[in-house]
Amino acid sequence: MSEKVRRRLPRQVREQQIIDAGMQVFSKRGYHAAVVDEIADLAGISKPMVYLYFGSKEGLFIACIRREGERLTEEFQGAAREGHGAEAQLWAGLTAFFTFVAGHRDGWVVLYRQAPEVGGEVAAEVTRQRSSVMAAVTGLVASSSPGGASEEAEFVAHALVGAADSLTDWMERHPGESPERVTLRLMNMVWIGMRSALRGEVWTPPSGEGA
Amino acid sequence: MSEKVRRRLPRQVREQQIIDAGMQVFSKRGYHAAVVDEIADLAGISKPMVYLYFGSKEGLFIACIRREGERLTEEFQGAAREGHGAEAQLWAGLTAFFTFVAGHRDGWVVLYRQAPEVGGEVAAEVTRQRSSVMAAVTGLVASSSPGGASEEAEFVAHALVGAADSLTDWMERHPGESPERVTLRLMNMVWIGMRSALRGEVWTPPSGEGA
Repeated sequence: MSEKVRRRLPRQVREQQIIDAGMQVFSKRGYHAAVVDEIADLAGISKPMVYLYFGSKEGLFIACIRREGERLTEEFQGAAREGHGAEAQLWAGLTAFFTFVAGHRDGWVVLYRQAPEVGGEVAAEVTRQRSSVMAAVTGLVASSSPGGASEEAEFVAHALVGAADSLTDWMERHPGESPERVTLRLMNMVWIGMRSALRGEVWTPPSGEGA
Repeated sequence: MSEKVRRRLPRQVREQQIIDAGMQVFSKRGYHAAVVDEIADLAGISKPMVYLYFGSKEGLFIACIRREGERLTEEFQGAAREGHGAEAQLWAGLTAFFTFVAGHRDGWVVLYRQAPEVGGEVAAEVTRQRSSVMAAVTGLVASSSPGGASEEAEFVAHALVGAADSLTDWMERHPGESPERVTLRLMNMVWIGMRSALRGEVWTPPSGEGA
């Protein structure tokens, strides 16, 4: 009977269940120690079914990274859309990002920490997800820039994404710090300079070096 | 005769020669396609000697990453020491960083791009090198902070290192941009905000959210 019920699940639903189980097991055991048997058990399906859907343990791991990356991008963009004006949009988007990371400490963060150690196609998927986040942030920054999409907006987006990414390490060492506080600190650090950078204003270094 | 000369080389000198050859071959072929025979040929020694010194191809790759990471940290710190005052020191340090990356496009950048795909112990070495750079930057930021070493200095250093790291991708897509210009843009973006962040000044988001 329960077998019959499971068979009726659409492919997409079952895929998500396997990914959920994969997330749990990869987070707990680490990629290398994780075994497909445990993932299949947790998802309530057979091991061959996991291989049928994802090809390999690596294929499932890539699917986990892809889903988390897509969710992160959606959260960021969804939150940003709610804000009125570039300042509020960026604030909302960054808060969503740090909230997502803080709320997925056992999932997303672990996956992203593990991914470089797995290497190969997994690392390539992380690069793809990062590019997609970068495109979303560049779009947001460009919309707040007087010149629209520009080299400057792309520069600012790279700096911002790199900073936010690196700050997830800092957050892990300061678990008491709320995602709102982290956003506040980061906005304090970059907002004034970002605005003037996008307007093309130039600060001159003390010794008069540079362009 | 030449064999005799080579034999007299101190271990440290020979190690550096093998690392030089490794850098060239890894950069040109990529980690997986690189073969130890070619590296040994280029270094003018026998293949077993490479294994004797570094254990494996992976061991040599790790040695390459370590040397480049140490050089980068030294360049950053050396340049920063030349500057008078926090502003000039940070400017000099960042210029040295971007100059190093721009000047090592075939070496350092390639190694750092390849490292995540190799995974394992190689990824761990990259993490160690990154921590060492982070410590150097934190020290510099802390010295410019009224409160000295602090949670805030650590936060600013994480944001700064993440931004600089991510901007090396941007630089690769804008090869005409000089390291000085990249530093100028980044300093423009973060300097004012950094100063006020380190002084503990707080910007309030438009909607009144946050702490």
